[in-house]
Amino acid sequence: MASSKYLTGDSSAIQEFIDRFDVFLFDCDGVLWSGDHLFEGVVETLEFLRSKGKKTIFVTNNSTKSRPQYLAKFTSLGIPTSTEEIFGSAYSAAIYISRILKLSPPKNKVYVIGEAGIEQELRTENVPFIGGTDPSFRRDMTPEDWKGIADGSLLDPEVGCVLAGLDFHINYLKLSHGFQYLQRGAVFLATNTDATFPMNHSFFPGAGSVSLPLANMTGQKPIALGKPSQAMMDAIEGKFQFDRARTCMVGDRLDTDIKFGIEGRLGGTLAVQTGVNKKADWEAEGAVAVPAFYVDKLSDLRLVAE
Amino acid sequence: MASSKYLTGDSSAIQEFIDRFDVFLFDCDGVLWSGDHLFEGVVETLEFLRSKGKKTIFVTNNSTKSRPQYLAKFTSLGIPTSTEEIFGSAYSAAIYISRILKLSPPKNKVYVIGEAGIEQELRTENVPFIGGTDPSFRRDMTPEDWKGIADGSLLDPEVGCVLAGLDFHINYLKLSHGFQYLQRGAVFLATNTDATFPMNHSFFPGAGSVSLPLANMTGQKPIALGKPSQAMMDAIEGKFQFDRARTCMVGDRLDTDIKFGIEGRLGGTLAVQTGVNKKADWEAEGAVAVPAFYVDKLSDLRLVAE
Repeated sequence: MASSKYLTGDSSAIQEFIDRFDVFLFDCDGVLWSGDHLFEGVVETLEFLRSKGKKTIFVTNNSTKSRPQYLAKFTSLGIPTSTEEIFGSAYSAAIYISRILKLSPPKNKVYVIGEAGIEQELRTENVPFIGGTDPSFRRDMTPEDWKGIADGSLLDPEVGCVLAGLDFHINYLKLSHGFQYLQRGAVFLATNTDATFPMNHSFFPGAGSVSLPLANMTGQKPIALGKPSQAMMDAIEGKFQFDRARTCMVGDRLDTDIKFGIEGRLGGTLAVQTGVNKKADWEAEGAVAVPAFYVDKLSDLRLVAE
Repeated sequence: MASSKYLTGDSSAIQEFIDRFDVFLFDCDGVLWSGDHLFEGVVETLEFLRSKGKKTIFVTNNSTKSRPQYLAKFTSLGIPTSTEEIFGSAYSAAIYISRILKLSPPKNKVYVIGEAGIEQELRTENVPFIGGTDPSFRRDMTPEDWKGIADGSLLDPEVGCVLAGLDFHINYLKLSHGFQYLQRGAVFLATNTDATFPMNHSFFPGAGSVSLPLANMTGQKPIALGKPSQAMMDAIEGKFQFDRARTCMVGDRLDTDIKFGIEGRLGGTLAVQTGVNKKADWEAEGAVAVPAFYVDKLSDLRLVAE
């Protein structure tokens, strides 16, 4: 049974921990902030790590924002970064579609269930899509929909892929379209499959709430492009060529962040207890993943600097 | 390995089959009709069975209609019946809440995700509820929602139960409320958990598309009141006191109808191939349930009458 080392308050352990790594991959929600609330000491901790020559990369499963939109969020919260340091699941999905799936006409359109972040990343990769934030998909079913979705006359014959992400405007019409495209052979992708979405110190439905009904209807699991999918790790590595043995994944969720780091064979994983999972979760029998290290909060790493 | 007897075209086998039973429980969608399309010969087949002294009972997982609404559908399609012969999952859920759960103040309200059928059945049983078709739940999230749902200020402290059924107006706001009530200890019920909903000779998202995201978010399975839940069988038996050994369940789905009949230890199950499952499904390795008998379509049972 793997066990975790507690670092909070132990300056020599923290020093040793930091010395082991050159690169830190950070989850965002639940680690740096919760919704629009920045956790205390986060900016200083990132600055401290960078001052030690560490590379910081932000890896988020939130597909509602594109990298430029994420950058705006970092900036508004006072965290210095650049789009180059940001990896989101919408970006990961767009890369996967354009560079790995390589859909070809006449079936090269993506039917998107999700928000603007996905659309922006698809546009950057020149991937044609329908759905997404299109207002014509944000409405109730009509008698014509029941008929035209069932017989296919209202479906776009060029759709070859369904990409499901977190959608604050999820509805029956969108799910119905998604199901029919999948039944007609579209490739099933999900930006991520998180059960919940952290916001306002609480939780709301996550991207899994969109893809799970479709998976249940079709009996088909989506290829998920967010954590813990190694497709995302490969994309990050493709860009930075880091040494996995000297890279640490920092996150709050065992089933996404910590699992992502372990399955990616990184040198280490660090759990923070400001989000979804707490010590009791990884100490429980049958825990989905056990972090190598843990702290109460990210800013506990600053101790060594004092 | 159980095997199924094929009755279509075999008049002596049909005669023997009919003689074995006094009561026939019929699933509706996929057996009697598909959406608004009545299958040929259904009315005559039901009349034929009744003329032989058989009791006919209609058992549906569709919670969008109450029994009176279902009666109107039967009538409009030209099928003579009465509300006494109809059992829907909305009715089954209302009965379960009022007679088994017996919620007491101050936590006696039901938060409904679903259509008018559920509301009508709850009203009949004098169960107080919120949500359902209330227009104030049919809208996008606002900044106030994120805050007030997270901190609980927008939640009704009297809710003690979440009842999830098929909702053609499912949205993020409804799922967010449902999740928060469950997190606060509400009992989790589902009218049914069907993955799909048959309509216009095709399939659309079923009630499972509503409860599954909530189950995934909470790690908690709902008590399902529709087929194959035996809560529904018990409710039917409580009303008719039929002899299970001389009762046959007729349906198109293995995972709901046929399983329902087998787990209810009925004398027989009959699969029709006008809906979701076909012969290949129950002959497949690891089939979820195997019917005792099968026909191509319900009206094949009329052969014996000729």
